Amino acid sequence: MAMASSELPTLLVFRVRELRFHAALRERYRVLDFLTSGEPLPAFLAAAAAADPPRAALVVGGDSARVDAAFLDAVPSLRFVFSTGAGLDHIDLAECARRGVAVANSGTVYSTDVADHAVGMLIDVLRRVSAAQRFLRRGLWPLHHHQGNDYHHHPHGHPLGTKVGGKRVGIIGLGNIGMLIAKRLEAFGCVISYNSRKPKESVVSYRYFASVHDMASESDVLVVACALSKETRHVVNKDVLDALGKDGVVINIGRGLNVDEAELVSALEEGRIAGAGLDVYEKEPKVPAELFAMDNVVLTHHCAAFTMESRSDLRDVAIGNLEAFFSGKPLLTPVLHR
Amino acid sequence: MAMASSELPTLLVFRVRELRFHAALRERYRVLDFLTSGEPLPAFLAAAAAADPPRAALVVGGDSARVDAAFLDAVPSLRFVFSTGAGLDHIDLAECARRGVAVANSGTVYSTDVADHAVGMLIDVLRRVSAAQRFLRRGLWPLHHHQGNDYHHHPHGHPLGTKVGGKRVGIIGLGNIGMLIAKRLEAFGCVISYNSRKPKESVVSYRYFASVHDMASESDVLVVACALSKETRHVVNKDVLDALGKDGVVINIGRGLNVDEAELVSALEEGRIAGAGLDVYEKEPKVPAELFAMDNVVLTHHCAAFTMESRSDLRDVAIGNLEAFFSGKPLLTPVLHR
Repeated sequence: MAMASSELPTLLVFRVRELRFHAALRERYRVLDFLTSGEPLPAFLAAAAAADPPRAALVVGGDSARVDAAFLDAVPSLRFVFSTGAGLDHIDLAECARRGVAVANSGTVYSTDVADHAVGMLIDVLRRVSAAQRFLRRGLWPLHHHQGNDYHHHPHGHPLGTKVGGKRVGIIGLGNIGMLIAKRLEAFGCVISYNSRKPKESVVSYRYFASVHDMASESDVLVVACALSKETRHVVNKDVLDALGKDGVVINIGRGLNVDEAELVSALEEGRIAGAGLDVYEKEPKVPAELFAMDNVVLTHHCAAFTMESRSDLRDVAIGNLEAFFSGKPLLTPVLHR
Repeated sequence: MAMASSELPTLLVFRVRELRFHAALRERYRVLDFLTSGEPLPAFLAAAAAADPPRAALVVGGDSARVDAAFLDAVPSLRFVFSTGAGLDHIDLAECARRGVAVANSGTVYSTDVADHAVGMLIDVLRRVSAAQRFLRRGLWPLHHHQGNDYHHHPHGHPLGTKVGGKRVGIIGLGNIGMLIAKRLEAFGCVISYNSRKPKESVVSYRYFASVHDMASESDVLVVACALSKETRHVVNKDVLDALGKDGVVINIGRGLNVDEAELVSALEEGRIAGAGLDVYEKEPKVPAELFAMDNVVLTHHCAAFTMESRSDLRDVAIGNLEAFFSGKPLLTPVLHR
């Protein structure tokens, strides 16, 4: 039975757009919604803090509210932040820890979907699946099919792709997602190596590189699967792209800022790398216009994590964590304990 | 050192379009090329048989020459046919056997590439990668990103895809290619079953269905990976599509005629199945126009087998078989021995 609204605990909510998720939250909490408030962040937070001091907030990674010192100062009652994303680059964990604010995230809800999407983009770029579709949808197949010309190599026809098997794939960030990507690509006969802060003791069959640059120079494909931090900002830069070389492909399902986007565009334009599969961009939802004209680039709109199943799982894990917090039980997927 | 043209053995060549392959053949054989002859098949064969009776032919599967009784009658000197495809539906093996004509095909040259392409299309359809690209390339992301609406479910936005893991995938034809598809999809957490003439003794972890219809009713995805024969013509028909149901997806990397294309188009139009990934069509290069308008369909132009690597491997295996034949050695990838 639903409690009267006044009895419900207050929850700050940022940028939740899914109606069903929103409804599930409103059933359980007095929702103060930044997105629909129309207010600037400081005014919204000040009003929230004054009214009925909220102890919990649900935030979405991306371009809206950053949970930093100013945010936490504005709502000193806050004791718990749930992030709907896997990445935590929008939360200042040190500031949260200092103030005793617990943090939980989506855990591994998205991991398999992101890994699947990364592998799908990798196959697409190497095998030119999207390019083939454009070729076909432009009505070019009948023209080339009935001609005697060498259409698979013809510059005006559809160039051949390259085999997935045997490719040397360097994964930047061998966390949960990176490991799932590696497992999948092993089944295709790819040769996996990885870069991370330090070698993983449990990983014996993948070669470790302490330097992304060195890994790039011995890879056909670089997959960006790391979290965004000061150290991984522009971890794929001009030097790394040049080390990867003209037959190399970049797949990014991490964060846009993990790659120097301007340098990536230049490298693609100048044929210094062979292609890219990108789900994330430096200034979302802005995608560099140059990329749209390229046939060797697969572009999706930061949707790698989103399936019907992961949406449903996210609702469960979000509400599970909030209920645990409000009833004083251990969080389900804690990043920072109380 | 190249022999004088008159000393080279004669080779009938059909529909070979790749210039490098053509050159490699011309280096070694006196090539009689149907494609460039401009003649109708009977006239071409009659002239070939009269001039310098050819003992070998290199044919390409598809819409050109069928190696049947009439073909073999026209060139009675023929003792060896090499098919550049894996499928042999364009060669009457019984007629070849009766006349002592040996047959070799491309063996497993294409298998991994076809399997990779099938998995790529499967991910694409389930995860709506191509649809996401169209969404993005139409400039729709910024519109939906800055709105507060539920864009992942919005009918005018971009609908969510569905998770690859856990999907029940029924593979029609568990040959070389089908098995490679199964191995790859296992890594994604799919549950594999298969249909073939009889259960494979060596396969214990995949469920066997004697009936495609029964398999469809217990599958989320049907993958057509069988050879085309009288038994497998329209093996995916209206009944099978209805058994698969409205959330079901069809992937076809076999032959266009394995699927009743008109029924497939109707099922997609009426939402009786959820989507399709097609590399082959009933009347190539004709693709039913209705399919181009569908956002849940991934279409490629019978290119699943073609990569730079498989092209190079094909040249090697074709020339290897021809050299073996002309020097009386065992064929490398025989289908029908002498």
